[in-house]
Amino acid sequence: MTRPRKVEVQEQIMSANDALAADVRARLDAAGVFAINLMASPGAGKTSLILRTVEALKDEMRLAAVDGDVVPVDVEKIAVHGIPVELINTGGNCHLDANMVISALPRLDLEAIDLLLVENVGNLICPASFKLGTHANIVIASVPEGDDKPYKYPAMFRGADVLLLNKIDYLAVQEFDVEYFRRGVEALNEGLTFFPVSCRTGEGLEAWYNWLREQVRRKKAGPAATLQATERR
Amino acid sequence: MTRPRKVEVQEQIMSANDALAADVRARLDAAGVFAINLMASPGAGKTSLILRTVEALKDEMRLAAVDGDVVPVDVEKIAVHGIPVELINTGGNCHLDANMVISALPRLDLEAIDLLLVENVGNLICPASFKLGTHANIVIASVPEGDDKPYKYPAMFRGADVLLLNKIDYLAVQEFDVEYFRRGVEALNEGLTFFPVSCRTGEGLEAWYNWLREQVRRKKAGPAATLQATERR
Repeated sequence: MTRPRKVEVQEQIMSANDALAADVRARLDAAGVFAINLMASPGAGKTSLILRTVEALKDEMRLAAVDGDVVPVDVEKIAVHGIPVELINTGGNCHLDANMVISALPRLDLEAIDLLLVENVGNLICPASFKLGTHANIVIASVPEGDDKPYKYPAMFRGADVLLLNKIDYLAVQEFDVEYFRRGVEALNEGLTFFPVSCRTGEGLEAWYNWLREQVRRKKAGPAATLQATERR
Repeated sequence: MTRPRKVEVQEQIMSANDALAADVRARLDAAGVFAINLMASPGAGKTSLILRTVEALKDEMRLAAVDGDVVPVDVEKIAVHGIPVELINTGGNCHLDANMVISALPRLDLEAIDLLLVENVGNLICPASFKLGTHANIVIASVPEGDDKPYKYPAMFRGADVLLLNKIDYLAVQEFDVEYFRRGVEALNEGLTFFPVSCRTGEGLEAWYNWLREQVRRKKAGPAATLQATERR
């Protein structure tokens, strides 16, 4: 029996994307760049996390960002900090893919970058299906979204290398069962690196910065050093 | 010159979906059901709005709900109120489509329903592209997501018949420029019906209930009565 045509087409798309993601990865590795793929719901704090991270680390490493968006609102906010930042105009698409990242690479001087922050489209579903060639999937959940999100968007939480729970300052004003949230995450992704943070108050962010410092250090130590985070999808 | 194959396939999918949506609409109309398609980011308050609405209106009209989800968490919350509620298991898909709604209709007694609440998948992008055959697109934004959402997710706001801004109780604890938000919405969708609400405190919800009462009343008045809201996508 032949396979359904829909499945075939989907597999072809994914395999083409995987090949392009491998190309991105090879270019990043050749230049010694550590790159992360930031994924979250709209408004969970992707841009806030990038802004905080740039402020904290820009004097100790060379940073750059790419932002998948339809308008350059976030790009302008990031550019204020004087780091290279490129818009990938998604044209309303629901996720970044490896081909879009490849199109942005020639506009960046990879040899002059230690850490590349890729801001995906605000969406807890579609981005989980497309490798970008980055080294780690960073998922940001946020307290106002509610504690049931791992149960309702399992693919995103399953594919994460690091999970940040942002807006923990809202725990004071909102019902949110952190243990229920954590149990949902652990059932999908045991032992996942987890940072509860507030990009507004700065609480908890030092542990996140330290994780990034460590990844960049290992990357610089060369391919012999085992990366803690490897894109697992 | 022939059209690109990708465009052709996409147009075929959309036109097949439109035909199915017309079928859903015809069945709803034949039974005198007014149906709404609730769309929002994850955690913006789709289920909370349904729960509030059911509590407020269940003694004056016959309600039912369908929920597009991978787990029956929300269905169970709604079922507590004793109204018919059906899960459409999306299998991780990023949006409902008309075919999924059709599959749920035989499980509902349409003749015994005045208002059908369809909870779409938590996603501000993909659901905007798929008509369901419902009579009105209800978009819920929420204060913690930030005031820039209309600028970043234009298709969703452009296709709305009614916009609710939920969690307005957070305006006391968070920066959110309501005028900037409104300007973004008006640029896309002039004169859009707008209800600022808090599903937590109940503030503003009476206007929403009144809007629903009016739509159901007009629906019962028969096809001669012009609907205020018509699905515009």
